[in-house]
Amino acid sequence: MTNEARHTEVLYGIHPVAEALFAGRRAVAQVYISSGKRPFRLASILTAAQKKNIPVHELPAGKIQQMAGDAAHQGVAAQVGRYPYAPEPDSYAARADSVSPPLWVLLDGVVDPRNLGAMLRTALCAGVDGVVVPKDRAAPATPAVSRASAGALEHVQLVRVTNLARTIEGMKKDGCWIAGLDAEADQSLFAADLSGPLGLVVGGEGRGLRPLVRKCCDFLVRIPQRGPVGSLNASAAGAVAVYEAFRQRNRKRNA
Amino acid sequence: MTNEARHTEVLYGIHPVAEALFAGRRAVAQVYISSGKRPFRLASILTAAQKKNIPVHELPAGKIQQMAGDAAHQGVAAQVGRYPYAPEPDSYAARADSVSPPLWVLLDGVVDPRNLGAMLRTALCAGVDGVVVPKDRAAPATPAVSRASAGALEHVQLVRVTNLARTIEGMKKDGCWIAGLDAEADQSLFAADLSGPLGLVVGGEGRGLRPLVRKCCDFLVRIPQRGPVGSLNASAAGAVAVYEAFRQRNRKRNA
Repeated sequence: MTNEARHTEVLYGIHPVAEALFAGRRAVAQVYISSGKRPFRLASILTAAQKKNIPVHELPAGKIQQMAGDAAHQGVAAQVGRYPYAPEPDSYAARADSVSPPLWVLLDGVVDPRNLGAMLRTALCAGVDGVVVPKDRAAPATPAVSRASAGALEHVQLVRVTNLARTIEGMKKDGCWIAGLDAEADQSLFAADLSGPLGLVVGGEGRGLRPLVRKCCDFLVRIPQRGPVGSLNASAAGAVAVYEAFRQRNRKRNA
Repeated sequence: MTNEARHTEVLYGIHPVAEALFAGRRAVAQVYISSGKRPFRLASILTAAQKKNIPVHELPAGKIQQMAGDAAHQGVAAQVGRYPYAPEPDSYAARADSVSPPLWVLLDGVVDPRNLGAMLRTALCAGVDGVVVPKDRAAPATPAVSRASAGALEHVQLVRVTNLARTIEGMKKDGCWIAGLDAEADQSLFAADLSGPLGLVVGGEGRGLRPLVRKCCDFLVRIPQRGPVGSLNASAAGAVAVYEAFRQRNRKRNA
């Protein structure tokens, strides 16, 4: 990994840098830590960098701030290769862990890096097989997303596709059911069967699913809501839905 | 409401200003909109202000930006009275809506305004009776929180108490069960009975519950997690937990 041209991004923050090192999916060319400061939480980064023979440089905090832009860098940054999107799988239904049926999350129109990061973190915690995003009308996998995901971006299988509707049709052929989250749906999330092979489609901030994507879904579900304020935040809605799928397949397994 | 001294905050953003007007809980002295811009979504604000005889001023966008600090103001701000925290109820178990048992959310150590806002929005959507926060080690109910909550702050019953542990003891005396969210708990959230009168205690960013608060809980539950990244974001964890309580009490009601 001596080709400098391949190291085109700067990750910042303890979790993104640490998880990039632990995941080992992208090249880490340089690690930068601010001079003087050696918070305890940096120790695992230093150890991992040493083990992989990655140079660690001490820099004034101001220099690291320059690399991180406006964001909070926690005194650490790293020059890394581009984010490695996962290839589309041969089959969305095949799963190495055969204990529970496959679970995919598809994001339609999530353009806010913080929302994308939060959703990736939740999806990874819930043990999904992967997350699918379209190339258009979607936040790309930037360092800000890695930061917002607490480094989950570095581990999750994130597939980027040209045409989300076409991918959904492919998933259906592979044997997955496609559930779309829609505030106007008749059926409650909690009344739906989410225990089989599933693609869960979550819309973006305030806009919901695009008509074509909605039309491709096998069924639509809503998260029941009360009170005067319109709707859940996209990442909260995603968390509730993905964990309901998690709950149902765990219950089934334990039955 | 002519006493200017009572109008001590500036709300900004469409949702906070609109919901403050709709909720009618705090005095709105002045509404400011940026000159020239009249997005469709401002219409409901203008109508509500007119109905309440609240003056609406057109200002250059730069002036509104000054009021909002760094935040995105969407071309609207309002000078309003202080946030009206709700008083502690005589009983945490008494509920006007007697259809389902009371559900309270208690936040321990949520210091990030965005996390607090997200949690308030979710709590309101899930129809909780109210949210309890301590005075110390907690984000106050600022305009930034109203913005992050999409205006949910203006509607939710937010109770601020001096001593969270003492409030928990009071809730228990009132007949509520107290469940604490704890990543180290033995019991899964989904295996716990959350269908009765309940206080759900959610910890802050990365720190979890304080020892004394944890000790006061009747039982602790964890959200099951897989994968290499440590833990769910606080507001995602809160959303999953509050909606599991929602699901259980709805199921019971429909049974």
